[in-house]
Parts: sequence; structure tokens; C-alpha cells
Amino acid sequence: MPQGQPESIPQDGLTTRQRRNRPLLMVHTGDGKGKSTAAFGLALRGWNQGWSVGVFQFVKNAKWRIGEETAFETLGALHTERGTGGSVEWHKMGSGWSWSRQPGSESDHAEQAAQGWEEIKRRLAAQTHGLYVLDEFTYPINWGWVDIDDVVATLAARAGHQHVVITGRRADPKLIEAADLVTEMTKIKHPMDAGQKGQRGIEW
Amino acid sequence: MPQGQPESIPQDGLTTRQRRNRPLLMVHTGDGKGKSTAAFGLALRGWNQGWSVGVFQFVKNAKWRIGEETAFETLGALHTERGTGGSVEWHKMGSGWSWSRQPGSESDHAEQAAQGWEEIKRRLAAQTHGLYVLDEFTYPINWGWVDIDDVVATLAARAGHQHVVITGRRADPKLIEAADLVTEMTKIKHPMDAGQKGQRGIEW
Repeated sequence: MPQGQPESIPQDGLTTRQRRNRPLLMVHTGDGKGKSTAAFGLALRGWNQGWSVGVFQFVKNAKWRIGEETAFETLGALHTERGTGGSVEWHKMGSGWSWSRQPGSESDHAEQAAQGWEEIKRRLAAQTHGLYVLDEFTYPINWGWVDIDDVVATLAARAGHQHVVITGRRADPKLIEAADLVTEMTKIKHPMDAGQKGQRGIEW
Repeated sequence: MPQGQPESIPQDGLTTRQRRNRPLLMVHTGDGKGKSTAAFGLALRGWNQGWSVGVFQFVKNAKWRIGEETAFETLGALHTERGTGGSVEWHKMGSGWSWSRQPGSESDHAEQAAQGWEEIKRRLAAQTHGLYVLDEFTYPINWGWVDIDDVVATLAARAGHQHVVITGRRADPKLIEAADLVTEMTKIKHPMDAGQKGQRGIEW
């Protein structure tokens, strides 16, 4: 149940309030479904809190557009129009990051991934967002496109109250070590094993 | 990646289109975080498809209100006002199911759970929703308040195109057997283990 009590009280000199409000680094990993879906569920929660939500999808396919992107566009517009919820920014690597002036560099995914991380570092330094969703960020780390030691050091040193959730398979052990919360999504059964294809509203 | 291909094509006489559009029974179980969050992420996807979304929270505490409930109220209102997305109904056991005329029966959770399931059966028969989120439904099943054989038989016989996602720990083996997709959320690390309390925007 969500209202759980901690199993022990650490002797860290923090008040309960300080401990409660500590910004979290969360990791959703494993081979099962739900890693990104749960991250976007968290983003919905953050939006409801009025946080600025920044989504950074490290996906290679520019054409890929999941239902959440459209839904969060609607939610972000509500913030602009009515002040309901928080603001939402949604950035995708595959289509060339929206802040980048080099859409022609699509072919160099390593370079794009590195640029994405540099932008996230700038935003963390500027305390731009209350919640960062770094979707499928484990892959550029594992492929060596983004340096894991830089990621861990940057996140450890981030100021203010910025939550970060990172999704993707095979999270680096250093990332798991650095994280406050790690959930592994394990596939017990999947329709594709039974020959079923992905479908609208479920996979996207 | 979401655009995955099936590992084998079954000899079931169905076309790819039929197979693609088969309604799914999904189960999120395990001791880790993200079971409900991923289910609400799916609901966001379903809302974006314009589906009627029905959420049924089998929680005992009437006062409990998570951020998603507020966010989905907003989304449901957008459907009513502008025709954007799908409709949303959100029902909670703890406060007495909204369709029930007996709010005084709060103390009898077994009876309430059974009533909740009876209503869901009526809606499945009427094909009311495109997606049913039966949140924390494994508990009333495990406590014997709702008969697992009835659940499995009812879901197997449901008509039309109704997706169902069930969340909660220790899913009954019969439920797992009946499901099309089962993900286990495993806790690798949790802030409460380090003495941290739950916090706004993360746990609710």
C-alpha cells in the first residue's frame, strides 16, 4: 500500500519532512512490459502536482509516436490555457531533438544521444523541470554513447528538487547503485509469445 | 521495442488483423512499485484512443485519492466538453461504490468487494468500457471475497473488444493462466528501505 512506513529510521540528521521531500532517482528496468508506461504514469502524477514535466525519449525512430505524447500535449495545453496541472515538454531523439538546429544529423544516433544528454545536463543545472522522464536512456548508456560516470555524477550533484526516472533494459550496475528506487519489470507472459502482434492502445 | 514481431505465427485460423485486435487480459503483479502506475499509463493510452475507460479501485480507505484520479477527471471532462479522448469513470470501493445506495455498508469490505465485481460483470455483459482497470483486485480474490473461478470464466466469456488490466500482489495462478500478458514488478531497491517516507507526486 502506498502509505507504507519505512522499515527503519536512518540516523542521517534529516527531519521526516526533509526525508520525505528528497528528490528521487528512479529506474525501471527488466525485459517486461510497463517500464515506460509506469514512467508516464508517474509523469501524470507529476503533472497533477503542477510540476514542470520534461520527457526525453531516446528512441531512434522519428515516426514513432505513442498515445502518451498526444495525451500529454493535451495536458500541457490545459496548463497553458487554464493553469491546470503542470507544463509538459516532450522531446524525441529520432526526429532530431526539437531544440537542435541540425535535423540533418539523424543518421548519427550516437551524436544525437550525446546532445540529448548535454541538454538534460543544462536543464538539471538550471532546475528546469520537477520531473525528468529519460525514456529508453539505458540504451545509449550501454552502447557507450553517453558516459555512465558522467550520468551518475551529474545526477548525484543535481540541485533543488528534481525527480528523475530512467527506463530501459539492462540498466548499468552503477545506475542501479546510484538510484533511490529500482523496479525490475519481468515478463511472465506476453501476447507476442503466442503469435499476437502489438496493437493500438496497448503498445502505443 | 514496441514494434516487435511475434516469435511464431500460430495456426489458429485468425488473420493478422483479427489477432492484432484481440482484447487482452493483462495482469501486473509482484512486490515492486509500478503495478498500478503502469495500469494508469495504459488507461492514458486508452483515453487517447477514445475508449471508454472504467477504473475500479478495490481499496479499503475512502480517503485515499491518488493524483491519477484528479488527472483522469480532467481528461474525462475534456471528452465531455470537446470530444477529445475517451470517457472516464472512476469508482472506489472504500468510499462506497458510487453506484451503490448503501454508503453505510463501508465496514463490510467483503460485501463491498463482491458488489464491485457484480457491477463489473454487468458492465462486461453490456460492453460498457473499452478498458477496465481493476486496481488491487488480486486482494479480494486472495481473501476469498470474490470467486476466482467466476472471475476467470466471466473474463474468458466476455464479448466484443474489452481490454482488462488487473493489478495487485500475489496474483492467483488461475488468473495468470487466463491472462494474455503478465508482468511481474520486482523491487530491486526502494526508498522506504532507506528510511524514506512516501511523497507527493511519487506515491500519490
